[in-house]
Parts: sequence; structure tokens; C-alpha cells
Amino acid sequence: MPCYSSDKLNELVMEAKKYTAQGKVADYIPALKKENPNDLSIAIFHSDGKCISAGEVEKKITLQSISKVLTLALALMDCGEKRVFEKVGYEPTGDPFNSIVKLELYNPSKPLNPMINAGALAVTSMIKGSSINDRLERIRAFVQRLAGGQQLSYSEEVARSEFETAYLNRALCYFMMEHKIIEENVEELLELYTKQCAIEMNCLDLARIGLVFAMNGEDPFTKEQLIPKDIVRICKTFMVTCGMYNAAGEFAVRIGIPAKSGVSGGIMGVVPNRFGIGIFGPALDEKGNSIAGLKLLEMLSEQYSLSIF
Amino acid sequence: MPCYSSDKLNELVMEAKKYTAQGKVADYIPALKKENPNDLSIAIFHSDGKCISAGEVEKKITLQSISKVLTLALALMDCGEKRVFEKVGYEPTGDPFNSIVKLELYNPSKPLNPMINAGALAVTSMIKGSSINDRLERIRAFVQRLAGGQQLSYSEEVARSEFETAYLNRALCYFMMEHKIIEENVEELLELYTKQCAIEMNCLDLARIGLVFAMNGEDPFTKEQLIPKDIVRICKTFMVTCGMYNAAGEFAVRIGIPAKSGVSGGIMGVVPNRFGIGIFGPALDEKGNSIAGLKLLEMLSEQYSLSIF
Amino acid sequence: MPCYSSDKLNELVMEAKKYTAQGKVADYIPALKKENPNDLSIAIFHSDGKCISAGEVEKKITLQSISKVLTLALALMDCGEKRVFEKVGYEPTGDPFNSIVKLELYNPSKPLNPMINAGALAVTSMIKGSSINDRLERIRAFVQRLAGGQQLSYSEEVARSEFETAYLNRALCYFMMEHKIIEENVEELLELYTKQCAIEMNCLDLARIGLVFAMNGEDPFTKEQLIPKDIVRICKTFMVTCGMYNAAGEFAVRIGIPAKSGVSGGIMGVVPNRFGIGIFGPALDEKGNSIAGLKLLEMLSEQYSLSIF
Amino acid sequence: MPCYSSDKLNELVMEAKKYTAQGKVADYIPALKKENPNDLSIAIFHSDGKCISAGEVEKKITLQSISKVLTLALALMDCGEKRVFEKVGYEPTGDPFNSIVKLELYNPSKPLNPMINAGALAVTSMIKGSSINDRLERIRAFVQRLAGGQQLSYSEEVARSEFETAYLNRALCYFMMEHKIIEENVEELLELYTKQCAIEMNCLDLARIGLVFAMNGEDPFTKEQLIPKDIVRICKTFMVTCGMYNAAGEFAVRIGIPAKSGVSGGIMGVVPNRFGIGIFGPALDEKGNSIAGLKLLEMLSEQYSLSIF
Repeated sequence: MPCYSSDKLNELVMEAKKYTAQGKVADYIPALKKENPNDLSIAIFHSDGKCISAGEVEKKITLQSISKVLTLALALMDCGEKRVFEKVGYEPTGDPFNSIVKLELYNPSKPLNPMINAGALAVTSMIKGSSINDRLERIRAFVQRLAGGQQLSYSEEVARSEFETAYLNRALCYFMMEHKIIEENVEELLELYTKQCAIEMNCLDLARIGLVFAMNGEDPFTKEQLIPKDIVRICKTFMVTCGMYNAAGEFAVRIGIPAKSGVSGGIMGVVPNRFGIGIFGPALDEKGNSIAGLKLLEMLSEQYSLSIF
Repeated sequence: MPCYSSDKLNELVMEAKKYTAQGKVADYIPALKKENPNDLSIAIFHSDGKCISAGEVEKKITLQSISKVLTLALALMDCGEKRVFEKVGYEPTGDPFNSIVKLELYNPSKPLNPMINAGALAVTSMIKGSSINDRLERIRAFVQRLAGGQQLSYSEEVARSEFETAYLNRALCYFMMEHKIIEENVEELLELYTKQCAIEMNCLDLARIGLVFAMNGEDPFTKEQLIPKDIVRICKTFMVTCGMYNAAGEFAVRIGIPAKSGVSGGIMGVVPNRFGIGIFGPALDEKGNSIAGLKLLEMLSEQYSLSIF
Repeated sequence: MPCYSSDKLNELVMEAKKYTAQGKVADYIPALKKENPNDLSIAIFHSDGKCISAGEVEKKITLQSISKVLTLALALMDCGEKRVFEKVGYEPTGDPFNSIVKLELYNPSKPLNPMINAGALAVTSMIKGSSINDRLERIRAFVQRLAGGQQLSYSEEVARSEFETAYLNRALCYFMMEHKIIEENVEELLELYTKQCAIEMNCLDLARIGLVFAMNGEDPFTKEQLIPKDIVRICKTFMVTCGMYNAAGEFAVRIGIPAKSGVSGGIMGVVPNRFGIGIFGPALDEKGNSIAGLKLLEMLSEQYSLSIF
Repeated sequence: MPCYSSDKLNELVMEAKKYTAQGKVADYIPALKKENPNDLSIAIFHSDGKCISAGEVEKKITLQSISKVLTLALALMDCGEKRVFEKVGYEPTGDPFNSIVKLELYNPSKPLNPMINAGALAVTSMIKGSSINDRLERIRAFVQRLAGGQQLSYSEEVARSEFETAYLNRALCYFMMEHKIIEENVEELLELYTKQCAIEMNCLDLARIGLVFAMNGEDPFTKEQLIPKDIVRICKTFMVTCGMYNAAGEFAVRIGIPAKSGVSGGIMGVVPNRFGIGIFGPALDEKGNSIAGLKLLEMLSEQYSLSIF
């Protein structure tokens, strides 16, 4: 399916791009540091197949935290709601996404939700499979299916780079092992997790996945139910309450679109029953969200009344 | 407008009532302690004027924390979004509603959102008026307008009882005075706050107010815009992200109806563009929400697909 | 008893004075702000009556937090060890002296020790007497006795100034009322507390009180046992483990003299069985201790091996 | 040197033994779980070579946290005070010994003192040597020298058991790697740390080491200065302010003897210029200290006025 450049979108992108100067590209991974902070692109995929875009929408980016919501869907399909939420909670935290404090202060210890790092690691540990490779392949194939079927793979370089410096994630994992929230080899789990985070796609793919969530789990073209409706509902809820790190509350008020961001500068947005959105803008604000991406979504939400609230 | 008892609703209430045994009536105020833990009633008010109910829907209850969302609306009308959110944040906390910890740990100090006690006190301190009495009267009159115009008042007994034992709220207020979030006499602010929390109404009134929020701030019968649409949107967002204390995330996943609860056992629910809900069930779960009221909303949401997600 | 200026002490004071430039006079009370940041004076009172000094040792300063250790002694005499430590703990906190966080996070709620503000307020609330005036007079008279009997009074101006801005202390008090650690009128307790903190004396008096602690509670001149030996031991222990705010650990390692500081810039030191020290140096370091006073004590401790460790 | 059983000591041990019933043997390591909760023994080693004891003082126990103070001494000898305290602070924490919270909440991140696990791991990472084996051998040889020279080794079984379940310590290490407090392979550091904790000795050895600290670092029999005096002073200070986990403050008030405990039930005590104490009593109180051992020390301190305060 082709995607057409839209003048109106291009205008909004130009406007939003001004904000990139106030942001900063993530620098904790060499591979991410190389991005151009001024980049900003967007694709919008409608259920009727219409796709409009602005910017270099075919540029590949890694999913990073966007993968959290996809793995949550797969874990719920693998293990069921009951078992998943025995290991991870439903509540926003008000803390940074990589915080460890509440794991100690809450009794019994449990990550508060699946969108913070601790929760996402616990969720990934629930993905079924006979080996790390098998589990990774299941995640990859699932994401590929959501993205419409074209071949997806992960960036070895980004995965390795993150794996080597994932000290905080290791701290979270070992803390959770102590409390039996995680019960597998930590290095293996981190290998799986960092590879899942390094799955690459472009804005079109991101928008295409957003569209599946917008259509309650059904691929609007093949009519296949890729994710059960109830699970999509759960995922969309977490996108609203916890999807934008500890800026989720403000995002819900200002923009009101279920969305999930990643430190690569990607944002996947879901406008229920209408379309999916894929954004790439690597300059981040201090909470780790694409600064111009947020601005762009805010302009879209205001002009087209996209808030679910 | 009369409200008709509904067999279907009565059935659901009977079913949900079984859960009252697992809850406990709030006991920190003598006036609340007197309620019958087995009570459960509900009213549903539609935009076409149809009202259905089950249980003793004319029994009076005090608003308690439900008032937080109403005062937020009035404060936003009084001072504007910018000024209100200089004093209070947008983010869910993951902490109990009366927690003081984050006020110290966050720099600069600021209540994380308007639905926790610290935030609600800061919001109430922004309500305009020439005196405490005048400000209280403005809140009361605003609430009365939302409820359709019949005379509302507050319970002197409940207000006094809460005022006398509001030690934690005093601690929150003085902490915020230190940081200039609050800049008025604390005893006066608490008098205003506890009286606001003690405003009395029944389930029908609650449902009627919920209906105004459901209709984006317009009274569907007089067509008067009682609250600007943008402010209603903000309020509904907070009802979803922070409306049910630190169970808001689970409530959003399981039920997905913008709602606000109070320790009196009341819940106000908002089904966008359709109807308002008022519930009274004084037996609370350990997070302070009506235990049977939640169950009742869950059954309604499932059977009639009311989740906004 | 006269006190002689000592050349050796003068030399050390000159040396230590250089550090005043790195400190700052406390500015939260207008009355404290007026002090000259370059001031530094010291008096050392020996058990044989010999007194040596350097600087303007007759300048009056308010006790501020130094009063905490004196009131602890009186409360222990009034109520006994058992009752006092039901309300307040023994443990250093690692937190700032005015922190409220642990009062919420510890269950049951209890100030960790009597040297942080929460603990000192709880201790003052245990001082016996028929009225606030009577209790204040008992504290004042006790302190006067320890200082050798000359007339002491408190600064109305400082007390009023602190009372009016004691928002954090009010927050701590109300939090403790909620948990029944304090069970009296908060405004009255704060009046008593701020007046106790505003008791005025000079460095000679401070040194004289330190001497009583050094002699295990006995006035070395009258041979009167002003404080029971066991209570003096408890007080000296807290001076070591918690006496210098959250710099107590470093002070113990570097200097090792039981001591208590106040934000007025005073320090009372106790060299067991030998002498008492009174220091005044209003320029404070970022933890609230006299910056040059610490330096002076460090030089004394090193040159004369005064550490108890 | 022989050690004589003392009737007086035996009496006190009998008295203190009654308290073992209120304690519990550490159960997180199988090897520790096997101990008899009713055991209690003590050795007291004087500088003139006189040794008195009660109970089975030749029973071997592992050092566990007692090793923290010995490794601190060696690290200070290896790297100097300045470098050691760049990585670890001086302040008591008021938190459990294995807490991770303050590492996140303090900025810059730094373990508050060398007696909590985070701090002890940072200290062990500063022990010099060409390999893990070499560094372990340096620690072992140092401890052996302090204990008088007889051959000491570590328990392979205990070390392995702790290594395998040291999830919280791994979490602490990785958190500190993120902040460059630790900069070596975590598994290797943990191997070194758990072996250091598993060094075995009996109460006589413990008392003999305590004696070296009591004599300011000098072996009283060979007259060799095994630890510089200044470093001994630092170590004794930490024993007082942080030696007994988060019961150190109460221990200082009640007992006042510089001491360090371990979860094996061992306590090493230091009575300055007089004698060293070694105690073994595996039943622990809820803070991880030997419950009967504390009681025994309290009786000794009271009857012989051993408190340094």
C-alpha cells in the first residue's frame, strides 16, 4: 500500500519541528546518539487503506519502549490476564520509568504497571517459548504480523549496545528475582529484552500497528483478529494511563490519544476506530518523549478533536 | 423528572450487594460510621431525560472526594488552566490519596495531581470569593446548578467532624504553605474544604451531575453550557487517570468509565454522550472505594460495553 | 569566674575563620540573618574552673537546635526513659533534620530520634507543667541551672519570627497528632518549642553547660548532680550519633567529640571528664552546621586528641 | 594462649540464654539454618593476654557482616581515606542494611556508609590485588594477622550458598555500576564478597581481633602496628554509628561498646584500651543481631560500666 505525502501534514511537521531545538537525542546508547535531532516524520494509516505522511517515513528506528505494549499483548495472549497481573500491577507510578524505589517500598514487591521498565521485564519473562531464540522469534513474528507482514528484524548493534550498558535493568531484574517476580536467568532475559527493544521498523509500520489497535485487534485488510479485543482494550488503557512515562497524565489531558513512546524518538498513536499514527522525532524532552512528536500530536488532536476524553 | 425503578438494574444490584460483606464502612468520621454497610443504590440519568434506578436512590450522602472533580472544574473556570497547573500537576502518583512523601521528594514541591488530598486542597485554595463563606457559597451554588437546580446544602455535623480530625490534611496544607503552593490561612482553608466535602445529595443528583459531564458540560435539558467543554475534558481525563485513588489504573482497565469516588461510598460515573451514573454503597474496599459499587459498575460496563477504551 | 583569652586559641580561630567565606548565615529568620558571617568565637571551660577563650565570647546567641539535647535531658528526668522512647526512636535517619518522609513510611509512625525536628517536638510535648508558661519556665530554669545560675531569658523577636514561619514544624506536628505521638494543641506546642529554641546565652554559658555534660551531670563547682548520670550518657550518645544533623557520621569520624549544633551558628561540645566547649560562628555549611566552628573543632580534636574513638 | 572458663561469665551467659527463644536463626542460607538457636558463647581477650570465656568458644562461625569493618580497614590502608570516601559516605541511614532506596533518591548516588551492604560492596571493590584470588588472599591474610596468626580459611559451602542467592546484592552492585561507584565485573566482585563473608573463625579469634582494635591497631603481644591508629579510629566510629544495622542507635545508647554484628550470630566488641569481645549466638532479633548476644553485652556493659559514653 502506498502512502501519500500530505501538504497539510507537512505544514504541521514544519511547525512542530521548531521544538526539536529544545530537545536532546538519547545518548546512553551510541547507536541512538547518531540520529539527527532535527528529524521529524509522521505516517497516518486509515482503516480504509488510505495512508498520508510527512517527512522521511521510511527511515528505520528501533522500537525501544514501544515494544512494551506489544509484548504485553503477547504475554496476555500467552498467559491470560490473571497470571500476568499476578506479577505486575495496573497503577501509574508518578516515578521515572527506570525507578527501583517502589519495588522496595511496596509490600509485597511488584512492579506497579507493565509500562515501566520493571514491569516490562516481568512481562517479557512471561513470553512463552522453548528458548530465548524461540521466544524472541515469537515476539518478532507477532510484531511483524501486526505491521502487515513485511519482514522485520532487530538491530544487532543497538541490542548489543543496550545489553552491555543495561545496569539499571539488571538491578531491577535481580531485585525482582529476590521476590520471585522473575524466575529465569537474568542475562538471558536481558538478551531477550534488549533484542525485543531493538526490533526495527519505520513510521509506516508503526502507524500500521497503531491501526490494528485502533480496529480493536483486527487487521482491517485481512479481517484477521490478530489480538483479542479484550486484550487490545487493556493495552489501550495502559497507553493512556502509563504510555508516556511520567508525563502520561499531562499527555492524556492535553492530547488524549492512546499512545506509547520510546527513547529512540518513536511514538505509536491509536485513534480508536479510525487510524493509527507512527511518529519519529529523536530529540527528546527531559522525560524521554519525542519533544516535537508530542507537539505534533497536540496540534493534530486539537485541530481534529482526536482526544478520547 | 421522575426516575423509574428498573428490574434489570435491581437484579444487578442484588448480585453486586453480595460483595458488601467484604468491605467496611469508613470509620474515621463518626457521621460516616453510622451508615448501613449493606446499602447499595444506583441511578442512571440519560440525556433524553430518562432515568432508571435501583435501591434507595433518594438517601442523602456527602460528596467527600467526589467534590474534588467539581471544585477542579470551578477552579479552572475561576483561574484558567495555566494558573491551576502551576500549583498542581497532571500525573497519577501510585501513592495513597493522603500521602505527603512526594511533596518532600519532588523538587520543586508540588502535588502531583488534583485528585489526591494535597492537590485538592491546593485547588480549593484557588476558588475565588471575598470570604470563606462567599467561596463556599460559590462552590455550593455551582454544584447545585450542575445537579439541576434543587436546593443543596452541606452537613454541619460531617463538616465539623472532619474539620476536627483533619490532622493529615493540616500537615499537607502547612507543608504546602512552606513551599508557597498555598498562601492563605490553613484553618480557614480547611473549613472551606471540609464543608465542600460535606455537601449532601442523593444518587439521582450524582447521576444528574455525571450527565452534565457526559454531555461535555451542557445541561441537556436547559441547553445551558454549565462548564466549558475543554474543562470537562480535563476533568474526565483526571477521573480516568486518578479518579479512584490508587486503584484508578485497575479501574480504567476493568471498567473504563470516567468516575470519581468518595469515602462516603458514593461514585459519580460519566458515560460520554450517553448518561451519568450515581451510586451509593458505603462499604469500602481497602483503597477507599465502594466495594459493591465497583462491582456494579464492572457488571454494567461489561454487559453494555461502556468502557471508553 | 573570669575567662582568659588564649593566644593559642586565638591562632586557631584566625585559621578557622578563613572558612567562614564558604558558608552562609541562616536566612529563614530575619533575626538570624543580621549576624556577621565572619564572626567566630570559642570558650573552653575546664572542671577546675579554668576558662580560656578567643573572640567575642560574650555575644548572645539563641540556642536553636542545641536546645534539643537539653530538653531531652529534662524530658527524661520528667517522664523516664521508657515513656520517652515510646514516642521517639534511637536511630539516626540519613535524612535532613526537617524531613517528614520517614514519619509516613515507617509503620508504626514514630520520629526516628530526638535530634530531628519531629523527634524534638515530640520530646518537648513531654515536658511537664501546668501551662505553656509553666513548662517554658521549667525549661528555662533548667537551662539556667546548667549554665551556672546567671539569669537567662529567650528572645521574643526570634521566637515570634520562628513561630510565624514554622510551617514545616506545623506539618510535622499535625502528622504526629494523626498518629497520637503528640496529643496537645499544636499552636501551643509550637509556641513552647520556638521559645525554647530562642533561649539566649553566650559562648561561655554554652561551654559551662557542656562542662556539666562532660562531668556526667554534676556541676563541678557546686558538686550538685544536675542531671542523673544515666541520662547524661544517653544525651551524649545522641550528640555523637545524631548531633550534627545529617553530617553527624562524618563529624564522629573526623572530630569525635559529642556535640550539638544549632542554625544560629552555635555548637556545644563535650570532652568527657575534662571540659565543655562553646562555639559561635553564624556562617553555616549546606547541612546547617557552623562551617568555621566545625573546622575549629577539627583542629582542636586533632592537635589535642580529643576524639572519644 | 589458653582461655579460661569464667564462673561469672557462665552465669551471665545462662541469664542471657533465656532470650534465645525470642529470636530466630537466619534462614536465607541453608548453611546458617543448621545452627542451634540456643547456642551462646563469649570470649573476652585482655591486652595482658588474659582470656576468659563461657560456652563453646571454639565453635567455628562465618564472619558475615563482621567482615565489613575488617575490609574497611584494609581498603583504607590500600587506597587512603580520601579515595574510599569518594565512593562511600559517613552517615547512618535509618534504613535496613540491604536497602536500595537511598541509592536512587540521593544525588549523586552513593552508599551512605560502609556498613550497609551497598557500601560494603563498594569498599570490597577497592581492595587491591591482581585477581579475585589474590584480593581474597590479601583479605584472608589480613584477617588472619589480626586474629593472631593461626590459619584461617573460608567456608566453600556458605560462600557458594550466598553467592547463588545474592540477588539483592547483585541489584545493589548493578545499580552502583550505573553510577560508576563500582567499575568491575559484578559476578567476580560478588564471588570475592561472599567468600570474604564466609571466612570462618571462633569466638576466641573474634575477641582477639577486637583486642587489636581496642589497642588502637597494635597487636599487644607482638607490639606490631597491624592497622594505623587513625584507621582504627575511623573503624571504631562506624562500629558505633552503624555497626548494628538499623539498631545501632539503640545499641549505642543502651550498651555503648563499639561493635559489629553478623547474621551468623557473631558479634565483635571493642572496649578501648582494655579488651576485645567475641560472641556467638545464632538466634537473631528482627533486625539481624544476635538477640542473646545483645542481652549479654548489655549486662556486661551495665555491670562493668563499659559504655564509651
